[in-house]
Amino acid sequence: MTAVPLAHPHSRQRVAQDGLPSDERWLTVRWKNLRERTVYENRWFRVNLADVRLPDGRHLDHYLIRLRPVAVATVVNEANEVLLLWRHRFITDAWGWELAAGVVEDGEDIADAAAREMEEETGWRPGPLRHLLSVEPSNGLTDARHHIYWAEEASYVGHPEDDFESDRREWVPLKLVPDMVARGEVPAANMAAALLLLHHIRLG
Amino acid sequence: MTAVPLAHPHSRQRVAQDGLPSDERWLTVRWKNLRERTVYENRWFRVNLADVRLPDGRHLDHYLIRLRPVAVATVVNEANEVLLLWRHRFITDAWGWELAAGVVEDGEDIADAAAREMEEETGWRPGPLRHLLSVEPSNGLTDARHHIYWAEEASYVGHPEDDFESDRREWVPLKLVPDMVARGEVPAANMAAALLLLHHIRLG
Repeated sequence: MTAVPLAHPHSRQRVAQDGLPSDERWLTVRWKNLRERTVYENRWFRVNLADVRLPDGRHLDHYLIRLRPVAVATVVNEANEVLLLWRHRFITDAWGWELAAGVVEDGEDIADAAAREMEEETGWRPGPLRHLLSVEPSNGLTDARHHIYWAEEASYVGHPEDDFESDRREWVPLKLVPDMVARGEVPAANMAAALLLLHHIRLG
Repeated sequence: MTAVPLAHPHSRQRVAQDGLPSDERWLTVRWKNLRERTVYENRWFRVNLADVRLPDGRHLDHYLIRLRPVAVATVVNEANEVLLLWRHRFITDAWGWELAAGVVEDGEDIADAAAREMEEETGWRPGPLRHLLSVEPSNGLTDARHHIYWAEEASYVGHPEDDFESDRREWVPLKLVPDMVARGEVPAANMAAALLLLHHIRLG
């Protein structure tokens, strides 16, 4: 992502001028975060301003947002149906299929958080969860990491506690996933990636 | 995503108490953004605090971050290889395969922005771009929208102007994509989704 307007840097020559070893090729593209300070914060995130050294030795002021990790979970049953939520997001004003997800609490195991969110949001308690994928939703701006888990069995424990987070919960055939994603019906990037990977794993 | 700690809301009953039409089912889950004010801003984004009405009539203070749209592009050649960048992200301190991407400028057409970023970051000028996918990287916190395009041809115009954004640019066989994604080698969520969809489209 072009986060900054820059003139053309002559990286390799400048690296040598900066006194950095020019024979370590990665140094030509690795940006170094020298220090950062918080310019705004609330209980959900911090906005920091970093002093970044570019490969050619120039310095750059770069904003970044530090966030808590997020845990995500779903289940695929024997019929190759995946448990999804149909919900509205007020910030983007868009409806879409999503997986259960939520912020990992202090000291909480990530897989435990994924299981907890799934039960709270869907009413289904997952069997043994396995790690599917970890992704960075916006790595040019934030340090957010979303960790996605899945199970092959689940038991229904009752109407979901967090029923205000979704309109309905449904078992959706995995075979429909690629067309759903292409039509924009899975707008969340992390969840589109997860569902397409599950489609590949289960249906090749 | 559970963005807020809440007791169990009895949505349907409370909606009626709030005077909202209880026969419109979506009202039971649609959160209404009544107003928002900016609490922090810089040239890249704004942090707003919204007054949100939940389905049961309660109000919630919810932070959100408003961002510019992002355009993303790549090319798949006749050999089913996809043009990717191998780059380091200093915020997450992670290496990964990415597609060319950047912020859409004021008044700029999104597909034009995608083509511009691809040429700046890879040195390849795409042929006719088609829309692949639009995703929301973090729809529980931001209004970010990433629009991903692809072409089936491209011409090399020279060493990329923005060569400081990636270590190298390579044509990677699409058939490798699912395993690359599963191993975490495509950490950006939007790009993992895009590459898995391209894999499905071209290799089924």
